[in-house]
Amino acid sequence: MSVTAARGFAAAGVVAGLKSTGARDVALVVNRGRSKAAAAVFTSNRAKAHPVLWSQQVLSDGVVEAVVLNSGGANCFTGPFGFQTTHATAERAGELLGVGAGDVVVCSTGLIGVGDQVFRDKVLAGTTEAAARLSAEGGEDAARAIMTTDSRPKQAVVTGDGWVVGGMAKGAGMLAPGLATMLVVLTTDADVPAARLDAALRAATARTFDRLDSDGCMSTNDTVVLLASGESGVVPDEGALERAVEQLCADLAEQLQGDAEGASHDIRIEVVRAASEADAVEVGRSVARNNLFKAAVFGNDPNWGRVLAAIGTTTAEFDPYAVDVSMNGVRVCHAGAPDRPSDEVDLTARAVHVLVDLAVGDAEATILTNDLTHDYVHENSAYSS
Amino acid sequence: MSVTAARGFAAAGVVAGLKSTGARDVALVVNRGRSKAAAAVFTSNRAKAHPVLWSQQVLSDGVVEAVVLNSGGANCFTGPFGFQTTHATAERAGELLGVGAGDVVVCSTGLIGVGDQVFRDKVLAGTTEAAARLSAEGGEDAARAIMTTDSRPKQAVVTGDGWVVGGMAKGAGMLAPGLATMLVVLTTDADVPAARLDAALRAATARTFDRLDSDGCMSTNDTVVLLASGESGVVPDEGALERAVEQLCADLAEQLQGDAEGASHDIRIEVVRAASEADAVEVGRSVARNNLFKAAVFGNDPNWGRVLAAIGTTTAEFDPYAVDVSMNGVRVCHAGAPDRPSDEVDLTARAVHVLVDLAVGDAEATILTNDLTHDYVHENSAYSS
Repeated sequence: MSVTAARGFAAAGVVAGLKSTGARDVALVVNRGRSKAAAAVFTSNRAKAHPVLWSQQVLSDGVVEAVVLNSGGANCFTGPFGFQTTHATAERAGELLGVGAGDVVVCSTGLIGVGDQVFRDKVLAGTTEAAARLSAEGGEDAARAIMTTDSRPKQAVVTGDGWVVGGMAKGAGMLAPGLATMLVVLTTDADVPAARLDAALRAATARTFDRLDSDGCMSTNDTVVLLASGESGVVPDEGALERAVEQLCADLAEQLQGDAEGASHDIRIEVVRAASEADAVEVGRSVARNNLFKAAVFGNDPNWGRVLAAIGTTTAEFDPYAVDVSMNGVRVCHAGAPDRPSDEVDLTARAVHVLVDLAVGDAEATILTNDLTHDYVHENSAYSS
Repeated sequence: MSVTAARGFAAAGVVAGLKSTGARDVALVVNRGRSKAAAAVFTSNRAKAHPVLWSQQVLSDGVVEAVVLNSGGANCFTGPFGFQTTHATAERAGELLGVGAGDVVVCSTGLIGVGDQVFRDKVLAGTTEAAARLSAEGGEDAARAIMTTDSRPKQAVVTGDGWVVGGMAKGAGMLAPGLATMLVVLTTDADVPAARLDAALRAATARTFDRLDSDGCMSTNDTVVLLASGESGVVPDEGALERAVEQLCADLAEQLQGDAEGASHDIRIEVVRAASEADAVEVGRSVARNNLFKAAVFGNDPNWGRVLAAIGTTTAEFDPYAVDVSMNGVRVCHAGAPDRPSDEVDLTARAVHVLVDLAVGDAEATILTNDLTHDYVHENSAYSS
């Protein structure tokens, strides 16, 4: 149960032949409820794939009837033919479901540049089959159909007072904010208008997916969409839906982190006593993107010097010689000098906590990242072969 | 011949026991000429090592008598004791050479956090020994003494009309602008005042070392210093010294790229038809810092989609659907769609050329980087062990 946990939704995931493995690769999620309110956020990369360009238009009126998703090809930089494929996919779904194509979101993931006639034929056939297999138990299949290098499907549900919000996500690499390479579909049976969904989703993604920075690489296809069916008949209290959506996004973001390509450590970089939340985010992100630090963590080496070298590149307010750095609870650097011996830090577990105390203010933020491993290099050098 | 190619300079490189391998680890370069004019640029990292903080003060009057350099410890974030070590090193060199400590530049490289009493004792003893071994043939030994993970010393000489400029460099990782992790000492026997040296050095480094971005990681200790002895008695023509210094820096930058830790490809990212040089640099750097693209090159995979995904994150002026991308002479992406088949691109050679045509203006810039390899991860996960 995930995108079909909320009342009013049906989903399916089918095999369309886009993946050479023969695994499921086309998913469909449909809102059959009394409300079709929706909101979405998309990659901030200027190089946007055709499905993103299309879906941004779909969202302009806050109404979404269905979402078609495929793995096995990003349909990005595939020329005018690629855009027509996205349009045709929405048309096909619209015909089958009896709704307008302009209310159908399309999401694609896979290699950039893949989107020829064969791709189109398979996506369209997959859409047809998925429409025939829609069911309130189809969430799991849908979650599997959007996987690329993911080793497992990602799903989560948060239960409210008479309503629920659930969702699925895919993403294992090219995970950097704005957003990570990921497709996320969230559904709720709460009765909420599009504007409130939009505010809740933007606030939640800013603090969750946008703070997951696995490898610093921003994708062209990222889409997070939230659909509300209104089928519970409940209008959640002020803040209740918002908290639930953020909790759901945080859960899915941690699942993405935990399944990042080739990673052997999940690193939480907590920045405290910053002058502003923006400063804390900038500092945390600078550490998350430091290849030398990430390689050191892979080698179980608590190399705090690389943390300081990373944060020194930021514009955040702090004195480099007043910063404290702790790793897994051991303060290894205090006020510009070594503190506890590094060999007191045990980095053998998958979870790593880095605490950076800027000693300036009272703002804080946490960035999630992964280590840089042999397997990351291997998987990403062989991705298209 | 390198730092001692120009008349008026002597150098030495000795074994002080800082490196566990027993290799040379302390170097000294002395200007014995009629002029002591000098200029330098330092890391723009706000987390600056003690030798950088010290040497910035030394350069404030444009006079430098000598440069002491050590590998085997960065003396960075080593507390007040570390700064005293740097000061003591300059004092020791000054005493031995009969010059003021305030005219002695100090450079250190190695692990951050290393700079205890043992380190100090070895650096001081090494300085004493180096002063006793100064010679006009000592350039090679000095170049070897500043190596860390470098596999070979880096030296170069450019000959002018009656004068020369030569130099040495070290650096193999943490190579990113502002500057790369590197120490560079350049010497000339041209008769040039400090202000001209400063202008020449800043212009040259901006177009060479600052466009070498091996791994996106900026160091705490980077120093490039240029000393002029005036011993040729020649004042180079307008532009002649400037061109020679830039040529020398470009040569050394390519040597650094070619010896980058674990790299198997040297990648030149040439950005053309940009609206401005700054745009071209930003676009080139975004590709140079994209781990997914760099891992693809390691795997000899001409994954141009990752180039577009990288440049889409910049603020440079261009239309993502009007960009052309070529790799090793094969145009693989044209105007937002695949062009020649990727399998026409041969990436087996070490040298890789990526051409990004933004189709906007007439500015251009080239960024040098390396691929992301198993060996990079390995070397940097084991660095401190």
